[in-house]
Amino acid sequence: MHSSPDFPQRLFSADGEAERALDARVSDIISRFLEDTRVNTEVGFDTLSAGFTSTLAPTEPEADADYLEHLERDVVTHAIHTASPYFLGHMTSALPYFTRPLSRLVSALNQNVVKVETAKSLTPSERQTLAMLHRLVFARDESFYTEHVQNRRSTLGMVTSGGTVANTTALWVARNGSLGPQGDFAGIEREGLAAALEHRGARRAVLIGSSLMHYSLQKAADVLGLGTQNVRQVAVDARSRMKTDDLRRVVEDCRRHREHIVAIVGVAGTTDSGAIDPLEDIAQVAREAGTHFHVDAAWGGPILFSDTHRDKLRGIERADSVTIDGHKQLYVPMGLGMVLLKDPRAAGSIEKQAPYIIRAGSPDLGRRSLEGSRPAAILYLHAALHLLGRQGYARLIDEGIRKTRYLADVLGARPEFELMAEPDMNILNYRYLPPALREAAREGALGPEQDAQLNRFNERLQEAQSSAGRTFVSRTTLRHTRHGQDRPLTVLRAVLANPLTAEHHIDAMLEDQLRIAATLETTEVMG
Amino acid sequence: MHSSPDFPQRLFSADGEAERALDARVSDIISRFLEDTRVNTEVGFDTLSAGFTSTLAPTEPEADADYLEHLERDVVTHAIHTASPYFLGHMTSALPYFTRPLSRLVSALNQNVVKVETAKSLTPSERQTLAMLHRLVFARDESFYTEHVQNRRSTLGMVTSGGTVANTTALWVARNGSLGPQGDFAGIEREGLAAALEHRGARRAVLIGSSLMHYSLQKAADVLGLGTQNVRQVAVDARSRMKTDDLRRVVEDCRRHREHIVAIVGVAGTTDSGAIDPLEDIAQVAREAGTHFHVDAAWGGPILFSDTHRDKLRGIERADSVTIDGHKQLYVPMGLGMVLLKDPRAAGSIEKQAPYIIRAGSPDLGRRSLEGSRPAAILYLHAALHLLGRQGYARLIDEGIRKTRYLADVLGARPEFELMAEPDMNILNYRYLPPALREAAREGALGPEQDAQLNRFNERLQEAQSSAGRTFVSRTTLRHTRHGQDRPLTVLRAVLANPLTAEHHIDAMLEDQLRIAATLETTEVMG
Repeated sequence: MHSSPDFPQRLFSADGEAERALDARVSDIISRFLEDTRVNTEVGFDTLSAGFTSTLAPTEPEADADYLEHLERDVVTHAIHTASPYFLGHMTSALPYFTRPLSRLVSALNQNVVKVETAKSLTPSERQTLAMLHRLVFARDESFYTEHVQNRRSTLGMVTSGGTVANTTALWVARNGSLGPQGDFAGIEREGLAAALEHRGARRAVLIGSSLMHYSLQKAADVLGLGTQNVRQVAVDARSRMKTDDLRRVVEDCRRHREHIVAIVGVAGTTDSGAIDPLEDIAQVAREAGTHFHVDAAWGGPILFSDTHRDKLRGIERADSVTIDGHKQLYVPMGLGMVLLKDPRAAGSIEKQAPYIIRAGSPDLGRRSLEGSRPAAILYLHAALHLLGRQGYARLIDEGIRKTRYLADVLGARPEFELMAEPDMNILNYRYLPPALREAAREGALGPEQDAQLNRFNERLQEAQSSAGRTFVSRTTLRHTRHGQDRPLTVLRAVLANPLTAEHHIDAMLEDQLRIAATLETTEVMG
Repeated sequence: MHSSPDFPQRLFSADGEAERALDARVSDIISRFLEDTRVNTEVGFDTLSAGFTSTLAPTEPEADADYLEHLERDVVTHAIHTASPYFLGHMTSALPYFTRPLSRLVSALNQNVVKVETAKSLTPSERQTLAMLHRLVFARDESFYTEHVQNRRSTLGMVTSGGTVANTTALWVARNGSLGPQGDFAGIEREGLAAALEHRGARRAVLIGSSLMHYSLQKAADVLGLGTQNVRQVAVDARSRMKTDDLRRVVEDCRRHREHIVAIVGVAGTTDSGAIDPLEDIAQVAREAGTHFHVDAAWGGPILFSDTHRDKLRGIERADSVTIDGHKQLYVPMGLGMVLLKDPRAAGSIEKQAPYIIRAGSPDLGRRSLEGSRPAAILYLHAALHLLGRQGYARLIDEGIRKTRYLADVLGARPEFELMAEPDMNILNYRYLPPALREAAREGALGPEQDAQLNRFNERLQEAQSSAGRTFVSRTTLRHTRHGQDRPLTVLRAVLANPLTAEHHIDAMLEDQLRIAATLETTEVMG
């Protein structure tokens, strides 16, 4: 094969029988993968990894059929079935069927959205789709959108590879916007952070948010040069929501210590518990302090589609920037984040140019973005907005919250489990209570040793359930619950976002957990 | 449709006739798009954009067939045909046919590589594939790879959404690694950049690289808090390669001014011209200065596959970090960058954790990466390495350079064109010379007014060619050519990376250009 004179050029042709043959085999692999509802194979991670140790790239090309056979056996089979109705543990879910054919189109187009010359129609299309999300969040009037949607000087939002880059971009805009040019000072973009702080007479630059904000904000604080210990963490209540009294005190402290506040972050859907910070109150504090207000709604943003639940995000429209992930509750494939900007000119503080592309004044989207070359991933969202409609998204949100209520009620009625808190949306924390500890737990009379026992047991339970591979929930550590502050508890974490999950799957998942717990109890010495 | 009780859940099922029907329609759209060799439609960008102004997301879902009809008419038709053999202007190219079916698999798996719980087999698979690239660049011995390939404490490289995040990640590692904890100082990661510089008694943190390094490095300097004016630009010669004498002087200056050097960057394939910096010499300077040496081989890295041309990158194996883009000369779809690290422990300086995922000591890939949730894009590279083999990549590289030589020879033989410099690899700069200026150009006797005329003419030529849509090259501005230093010249830029492009396409592109130039000459007053 490889010795033929038209190799490898021939592989780049678009009209081949070979492509159709390979496509048919891929269809079979996909069907086998998706039809099996098992979440995980029984092969342990280290055992599996031991099969991936050859590091010399193949010299000669392999035949398509041989390659696909290896790929299915070694890789696909041992991928996690994130679409399974029994996979209730993370923010990755089943996707609408149209995303699969569309991904072939996205590959075939192979646009690079960084500039018009490699993504002509995708440029206005991406702007339009972002404007639809902007309108969902900020609900400005028609004339606002008419003015800005295709105005090359305006930026209603940026597409990113995910929520981390979206959060980082928002804070980059906030940092540069708040430390811009002034008098002799050319601005942080040009002179850097140290010079900016010196110019302002500030001792350091800080970021403020609840102790439960996503770790990507810590990461962003490192990347942007602030330093992770300059992330000021505000205390949360037993339902994981930021305490705004504490926020006011933290802001005061920053003022007193001459710390420059880059932004105050509110969370709409904490990763742990789906909790929603009091956005309206935080907006007020941010306005009074004159600082940028960022809302990390990577998870919770799409709640805005629901007439029933929209009100939970009240205040989000007062944010200066909002992160929403496409690959979470907008049900597009992995790799689509967005940051929306209230002020269409805010992104000017991070604008860059280059002679070969994104020239000054051009409509190239790469002028204002952290990333450079980017795929036309926006097409997935464009399609989903049209094929699900706002109505479809509303139902998905409502259903997820309804099923979470169902799980909460089941847990509340069973003595084997403890529901940690009433859920704000569709993420729920609970734990298993071995018989000997049930009464003490109910009475709030658990001591440090019993905490440790419970933590260990729930950790083992989650690991055993994950390894068994029939059903899946994740786990996390909550530091503040009704059992007390600064008392770390290991809890199970269910995410009810998969539209394929019905009540009977939830029941089966709990039954699986009870069986595994019973086995663990008989094989281990419990207190 | 939307009123049916199983809407929208039904759209998430995997066994539907609807999916097959939609898939067939998508196949038709792809065929129509790829079969047409036109690069661009004649509709102007502003006219096109005026059709993308509605910003209210649809309330009710649209039928699949209706949506696809709109999508093809409004978006797909006006996408840029980056796979056309006449598209010779950017780093985006035709892809091997297997990428299209595989993209359906990547969507169907919908893995999130941030953690093992959502990407079990993709975790060791990604590590293995990165190790293959690491071996291509650094060529360490078998025992090195046996030790590190699946060792969770080791990081041979990171997958990113593209070259910009890869470069930013490399500099983040360099910045944190060079300003780590020391005595009372907890390190830049925790205390931030201003405190780090104060601790070191440094006035600022700088980045050094040639004046032609990619603009993403300016962007990274902004993001990381260094400031863009603290990017020290080293002069290049007439063939766009960094002058190492000048580099030594810049390093000396930094020392004298107490500037902390975060990294010295060498470029393997400048975006403008495909020029390769003298990596061996730069490595030596970096070693003597005790600083991190980063090579941006986003474009040029895959030359290492070629026995004939590998030697051009001599010295790359001495780099501390290397960026390579998958979506450039590794021919995978848009959205795959990589940074490779010589020292498998270097990424420790940026490590992060969170209670719900990527716990300390876990094998989760999200512990050491700028991004969080990420798709299994590595599968495309895994497939390409197996289905093209090193042999296939070698031939692609050799062919691209051979065709560039062909274009250079044709241009050299035609009085209408001026070849700006002998190409290092497969990117080439030239310009059109209107008849009245040919002699002066050949004799190097052009004055400032004639420069301006030529610049304007080539800019119009490129714009007219792009709008006509039959063929495409891009344009850039070179500041240093054989015509002089700091004398900006607008030139045409051909990138010969598309395996579908043959000599006759190159000839046709030049003929198209000559025709357009002739028209411009008759309609404009030329000096």
